[in-house]
Amino acid sequence: MGASKMIIDDLEREMVEDLCFKAVRVNAQYEDTYLLGTSLARPVIARGMMKAAAREGCQFVSHGCTGKGNDQVRFELAFYTINPNIKCISPWRLPEFISRFQGRNDLLEYAAQKNIPVSSTKAKPYSMDANLAHCSYEASLSAGMLEDPDVTPPEDMWTMTVSPLKAPDTPAHITIHFEKGIPVKVVTLESQQTVTDSVEVFKLLNALGKEHGIGRIDIVENRLIGLKSRGCYDSPAMTILRVAHLAIEGLTLDGRMRAARDLLARQWSQLLYNGLYFSPERAFLQPSLDFAQERVNGEVRLQLYKGQAYVLGRRSPEKLYSEEDASMDSLTTFDPADATGFIAIESIRLKKYGQQLAEAGVEL
Amino acid sequence: MGASKMIIDDLEREMVEDLCFKAVRVNAQYEDTYLLGTSLARPVIARGMMKAAAREGCQFVSHGCTGKGNDQVRFELAFYTINPNIKCISPWRLPEFISRFQGRNDLLEYAAQKNIPVSSTKAKPYSMDANLAHCSYEASLSAGMLEDPDVTPPEDMWTMTVSPLKAPDTPAHITIHFEKGIPVKVVTLESQQTVTDSVEVFKLLNALGKEHGIGRIDIVENRLIGLKSRGCYDSPAMTILRVAHLAIEGLTLDGRMRAARDLLARQWSQLLYNGLYFSPERAFLQPSLDFAQERVNGEVRLQLYKGQAYVLGRRSPEKLYSEEDASMDSLTTFDPADATGFIAIESIRLKKYGQQLAEAGVEL
Amino acid sequence: MGASKMIIDDLEREMVEDLCFKAVRVNAQYEDTYLLGTSLARPVIARGMMKAAAREGCQFVSHGCTGKGNDQVRFELAFYTINPNIKCISPWRLPEFISRFQGRNDLLEYAAQKNIPVSSTKAKPYSMDANLAHCSYEASLSAGMLEDPDVTPPEDMWTMTVSPLKAPDTPAHITIHFEKGIPVKVVTLESQQTVTDSVEVFKLLNALGKEHGIGRIDIVENRLIGLKSRGCYDSPAMTILRVAHLAIEGLTLDGRMRAARDLLARQWSQLLYNGLYFSPERAFLQPSLDFAQERVNGEVRLQLYKGQAYVLGRRSPEKLYSEEDASMDSLTTFDPADATGFIAIESIRLKKYGQQLAEAGVEL
Amino acid sequence: MGASKMIIDDLEREMVEDLCFKAVRVNAQYEDTYLLGTSLARPVIARGMMKAAAREGCQFVSHGCTGKGNDQVRFELAFYTINPNIKCISPWRLPEFISRFQGRNDLLEYAAQKNIPVSSTKAKPYSMDANLAHCSYEASLSAGMLEDPDVTPPEDMWTMTVSPLKAPDTPAHITIHFEKGIPVKVVTLESQQTVTDSVEVFKLLNALGKEHGIGRIDIVENRLIGLKSRGCYDSPAMTILRVAHLAIEGLTLDGRMRAARDLLARQWSQLLYNGLYFSPERAFLQPSLDFAQERVNGEVRLQLYKGQAYVLGRRSPEKLYSEEDASMDSLTTFDPADATGFIAIESIRLKKYGQQLAEAGVEL
Repeated sequence: MGASKMIIDDLEREMVEDLCFKAVRVNAQYEDTYLLGTSLARPVIARGMMKAAAREGCQFVSHGCTGKGNDQVRFELAFYTINPNIKCISPWRLPEFISRFQGRNDLLEYAAQKNIPVSSTKAKPYSMDANLAHCSYEASLSAGMLEDPDVTPPEDMWTMTVSPLKAPDTPAHITIHFEKGIPVKVVTLESQQTVTDSVEVFKLLNALGKEHGIGRIDIVENRLIGLKSRGCYDSPAMTILRVAHLAIEGLTLDGRMRAARDLLARQWSQLLYNGLYFSPERAFLQPSLDFAQERVNGEVRLQLYKGQAYVLGRRSPEKLYSEEDASMDSLTTFDPADATGFIAIESIRLKKYGQQLAEAGVEL
Repeated sequence: MGASKMIIDDLEREMVEDLCFKAVRVNAQYEDTYLLGTSLARPVIARGMMKAAAREGCQFVSHGCTGKGNDQVRFELAFYTINPNIKCISPWRLPEFISRFQGRNDLLEYAAQKNIPVSSTKAKPYSMDANLAHCSYEASLSAGMLEDPDVTPPEDMWTMTVSPLKAPDTPAHITIHFEKGIPVKVVTLESQQTVTDSVEVFKLLNALGKEHGIGRIDIVENRLIGLKSRGCYDSPAMTILRVAHLAIEGLTLDGRMRAARDLLARQWSQLLYNGLYFSPERAFLQPSLDFAQERVNGEVRLQLYKGQAYVLGRRSPEKLYSEEDASMDSLTTFDPADATGFIAIESIRLKKYGQQLAEAGVEL
Repeated sequence: MGASKMIIDDLEREMVEDLCFKAVRVNAQYEDTYLLGTSLARPVIARGMMKAAAREGCQFVSHGCTGKGNDQVRFELAFYTINPNIKCISPWRLPEFISRFQGRNDLLEYAAQKNIPVSSTKAKPYSMDANLAHCSYEASLSAGMLEDPDVTPPEDMWTMTVSPLKAPDTPAHITIHFEKGIPVKVVTLESQQTVTDSVEVFKLLNALGKEHGIGRIDIVENRLIGLKSRGCYDSPAMTILRVAHLAIEGLTLDGRMRAARDLLARQWSQLLYNGLYFSPERAFLQPSLDFAQERVNGEVRLQLYKGQAYVLGRRSPEKLYSEEDASMDSLTTFDPADATGFIAIESIRLKKYGQQLAEAGVEL
Repeated sequence: MGASKMIIDDLEREMVEDLCFKAVRVNAQYEDTYLLGTSLARPVIARGMMKAAAREGCQFVSHGCTGKGNDQVRFELAFYTINPNIKCISPWRLPEFISRFQGRNDLLEYAAQKNIPVSSTKAKPYSMDANLAHCSYEASLSAGMLEDPDVTPPEDMWTMTVSPLKAPDTPAHITIHFEKGIPVKVVTLESQQTVTDSVEVFKLLNALGKEHGIGRIDIVENRLIGLKSRGCYDSPAMTILRVAHLAIEGLTLDGRMRAARDLLARQWSQLLYNGLYFSPERAFLQPSLDFAQERVNGEVRLQLYKGQAYVLGRRSPEKLYSEEDASMDSLTTFDPADATGFIAIESIRLKKYGQQLAEAGVEL
């Protein structure tokens, strides 16, 4: 292509520690299902590109995203925020390019003609994009298969998970330790491994999750530009970490703080999906979201088995949970008569509501 | 006990159609995990009791909930709303009762003494509560086991699911049909069954889910009265239906309507958990939540396998999803240049933000 | 201009009843200040244009909005939703037009040259847009005055309100009657008028508000396309109605329903501002918002005086408010001991929080 | 009463700087009207009491709030959070007290009998509570007047504002300077005063507001314990500061950050009203709310006149607002064609929605 230079920076640690762990800490999820693997990678790549562009004195950058997807928006908004003076060239939106290559078929033919090796083929008619958080699979050829949301993806599509049906018959057991909501250590029971480095933690969970078939997602999602698209993703580590983090939060977060946090967490996920990691509104949400994790300390025991991570137990040095309180037997810290007052106060307005309805002849 | 009469009404259909399906339609979940099985049963029972009380001319009702739990609140708020003049006697909060029986141990002894058969024993030191939506298991004896959130529940505790480890090696395949967000038909592939009656649909899914070990939940949750408690639940049908409903919504709901709906759905779940099904605020949320389901029509194919329900495909007569739109090849309905304008407009304020930060020397 | 036909439809009633009253019912406000006058008119105009276009068999429509403003978005999104096949020509965004007229100065010169009468002049360098809900004033000439947000608008700019400083020294008194949140009658005390027709109600309130200088707004707002702009608006009727509606809601809405409603109302206002009146998400919000008004019945007495509407009193046939309850003397419906229980329950988790902080040495 | 000691601490600065300014920074308001004057004072008093109790080695504290109001909850929740071991005696909820004094009439008689001077009399049958943020007036005698929400309060009730009808015919002009959302300086035009001390700023604004009749509120509000009550408040400084702060935020806050902030601000107000200033959830919200004010710098010119504060202009060193951007003439930073793309993208899903409705025969 005439490129004068190629730069490959290792951004794994930044990806894991700055983006993935922020997502873990807010139990990030888009539309109740998708763990944002692509969305988490884009800010890291964009920031890396802007740094390289600064070092090299570039005025222009480019990317290969299509004009219908989310990633063009994510990359360019990040570029423009980090460097408001950069210009971005987006070939897939340029008339001269579009008229020459009217779809991926044309590109595949061109690639074949020029002996350029590409992973997307007529036999594997989907585009793939892998990073530490996941691999994504999306329809990319009109003769493809993923376009039809009623066609099950072929088993050989998935790269970061084995099929749950082919996963080991024996479960694996691990313990994940959290400090301030961050997974700082993973200990495996059967293989007796202990890992504490953030990237190693992540890779170990990816490996274990792959082996046990954990983290496959197949959804029709709402893209930010108003189209629906079908996306398949396998996210082993992120799936396991979400289960474990929810469990440790159960033990350590105050209930009403958690409810308030969830509202912000939902916004955080939406902003990430929409390419707004670098934005005033995400920056605004972050301090409170971080604050909420101050006491999310403890460890979670998990069983990994054929497609799923199960919580077996959790413990924490924090003391919000008390066995004595939770026991129905103990009344040392609790006067049952208080509940009577509580219910009486809570029912004041409900009785009025009931009276209103009764007078209006409405049956509940 | 000197009771003069016992009334057992069959409220299964009401439970399924009025409560469970409302929950399915909003993907109800408390604290990202719990499917609200108990919370869904309470309004049905309370309404049934108030109807019976009206028929019998009662001025008083009673229940056996402890003074530390959610259920006392749920029952009594429902009683008082439906019938603002009813009085509720809550023995577990009466001094004369509490001083006589200081905990469940005393009660077990009393039951033994009087030859009263009870399910909670020193060997099974947890309280159970089952309905169509789930069975719950909670610590009930101070010598018990569930109190310690790091103790894994014994395998023989679970009643509505087999262990995923003991589930069949062969998956089952089913199709669930939705009309307006309600599951109106289930077809099983292997056993060639077709079920359309709401209660039968629910029971079939419970049976299939039980067989394949689907729907076990083990959490530490935040009770509405400010205590944390450990709860274990198995909810086969509700778990399968939630997965399927999310999938059909992916295909049929507009993205921004969905985002707005999710905020209300979250409130709905919280209200149910807090015993406020019969309340002005739940009544307020309902019309919009119902409206959102008008076009949630279609069918979802699922695989049930060792603890989990996997979506294999989904289809709908609604047309929000378009294969042509989703394909990267097709540009007939889409001018890629539009995305350039979109990104430019979206980046106006982000560039200003980037400039502010740059001037302040803040690195993103 | 060579137009072959001009159509002027009277859409006043639609504007008042369908849009303005919906806004009144949700206390609509953008960024805590702006009463959405322009936003409310756009859907009415767009729908009227689409109807006329259908009658005339048009394939194209047009508007005169600039390329930097909100209105282009509001009109076009409404057009495309109502008639997905219509094409919109937007001269202010066409290169051939932009290059010929580089700003309003060029247009004013052209108008002068061609003897076309225009209201925006070099002496009044702002654009005005009036409807029943308000008149708006925005900077339109680079030599203008409103651009500088620190320049006070000239007194002769305002058309729908006199200056509060020049308003009568004697207040006027009116009573507004609401049914289901809709103002169905206005009675004036001094002038002894009674008006019940919706448009007449609106015009009367505009007249009274104008006389007493009520409803001037001067803000810097965030446009939907990411620019900030300075906008001045005078909205007499809408200002008075908002004050009155809030007062009647105070008496008739359950507190927690109101809190839930406010979240939706805020979204409603934002959607209107962003040109999304015709959208799935606005349609989604509407049923619950409407539901909330079922019992917003009663009347509010107001004093209009030099720039402001003051609530003097309100009454309602609904019975949520009770003088006996509110009185500190009466204890017939209330056992003070209940509050003790309520507080005890509410403080369970707060005491744990306090203990955590104390152990950590954090001072509150 | 046999008290052995009386402690009067000066907490004015804490009230202004820690509570009132936090409220100003979030434009705090309860139910769209009430500026939270009482709610802001309670945490300061409670903290002061707990400090005094610690110094004096107290195990018990007390307060004079009734059993129907908000303040008992606010005080006690604050006490228990700050010192989980303190016990609170609440005479108005003790049977021995309640049976002796069945209402305020009994208390007035007792006070008369014992020559105890009290402000609430049969002629002024309302309770008053004043602090720097406001004075509140609530019904306190069953023979009183404020209970009836349709009775206008007597003019001589108000203590912190003159009647707007009696305010000067000449407006006053002031400039308020903000740093990080905090009012750090007030300059008066006519009287040529400059004040920078926080308490002095607050007192000056209270004095000016009083003179010009600014800040009267008369509402029926929803108490946290489920009753409605009528409250009258005059809050001169808080009213002026809210108007000014909104104006400086208009110039300095990014629009979407503002929208996200408003959701949190609304929760903050609700928490304050409900006595939860000292709570995990308020602590959670604070970091992001504080973050949002980092660039809320600048000055606002206001006119105070007969009941209202009007914004005349505002300026800021921050650069989010640009006259060039706002002008319709300038196109140097803006390509109008971008808006075309933006609208096209935004309309993708709306066109699908329109098509759905058209096929269903629904007219918009």
